[in-house]
Amino acid sequence: MELWEKTKTSELIFDGVVVHLYKDTVELPGGVESVREYVKHLGAVCVIPITDDGEVILERQYRYAVDKVLVEIPAGKLDYAGEDFRKAALRELREETGAVPRELIDMGDYYGSPAIMGEQIRMFMARGLSFGEDHLDEDEFLEVFRLPLSEAVDMVLRGEISDGKTQCAVLRANAMLNKE
Amino acid sequence: MELWEKTKTSELIFDGVVVHLYKDTVELPGGVESVREYVKHLGAVCVIPITDDGEVILERQYRYAVDKVLVEIPAGKLDYAGEDFRKAALRELREETGAVPRELIDMGDYYGSPAIMGEQIRMFMARGLSFGEDHLDEDEFLEVFRLPLSEAVDMVLRGEISDGKTQCAVLRANAMLNKE
Repeated sequence: MELWEKTKTSELIFDGVVVHLYKDTVELPGGVESVREYVKHLGAVCVIPITDDGEVILERQYRYAVDKVLVEIPAGKLDYAGEDFRKAALRELREETGAVPRELIDMGDYYGSPAIMGEQIRMFMARGLSFGEDHLDEDEFLEVFRLPLSEAVDMVLRGEISDGKTQCAVLRANAMLNKE
Repeated sequence: MELWEKTKTSELIFDGVVVHLYKDTVELPGGVESVREYVKHLGAVCVIPITDDGEVILERQYRYAVDKVLVEIPAGKLDYAGEDFRKAALRELREETGAVPRELIDMGDYYGSPAIMGEQIRMFMARGLSFGEDHLDEDEFLEVFRLPLSEAVDMVLRGEISDGKTQCAVLRANAMLNKE
């Protein structure tokens, strides 16, 4: 089967600080036309920090878009298009938790909602942590806490962690560490 | 720490078919004001179908927003606000793969990108599958294939499946089935 869509027209609907919304008409295989409403985004990183004691560092954060306090791993937007993912991951980890890792393992990409959202999130695992001071942005409010990784896994399996990147990162880190 | 944000003003920027974009000003703890650009969405479901042989049914689909062919589990939007998640999951599974499950297990919510996206995706596992005909929508083009669940797990761990809900569902289904 052919799997492609060809852009016919593209309209920038809203050019915000974070969200860049487009409405395009596309041609599908067979010649049918359709409309795609989607968000472009600079890209982001997330990091699952694992301490030498096998604990994961998590955050509680209020998320306005879903009107809930969610449990998440540290994450953040790139500062500019094309910023090195690794550099951004180290910055966000340091800002939000104060942690500096000896080892930062690239776990590949995560697309959270590819039907309408272009946001690419690169996922990392951080190990060998030492701690300095955190430096939260003025509009960032979050509560950092630690949990044994096995407990975080159980929370994911019970459906108690609803943030997608955190579900993925907890299960992937656990599988990777169990293989060592 | 206080974890909340209070709406001061709310503006509907774009009221599309799928995407409903808002720009709100909010008050943060301490009185600072900030802006939230975010997308409201009807909600959606995703289903990981596991055959009696321990295979997972997956799809290859071109995703315009990320300009890539992604490997994903069956998924789709609710037909209307408040639609029963279970009913929607059975419909999408049937339409995309022809499968009808004897058992549909609720795995809880997945928020793919809660910083800017309100979309709630309810995740299910489907088992005891029998097969009828699929009925794809006119603008849906996807290639259905099967893989042993253990191979899908390895692909996720190698970073070869970048769709977030599929990463989560594959690892969660595998962990749940290994516990039985």
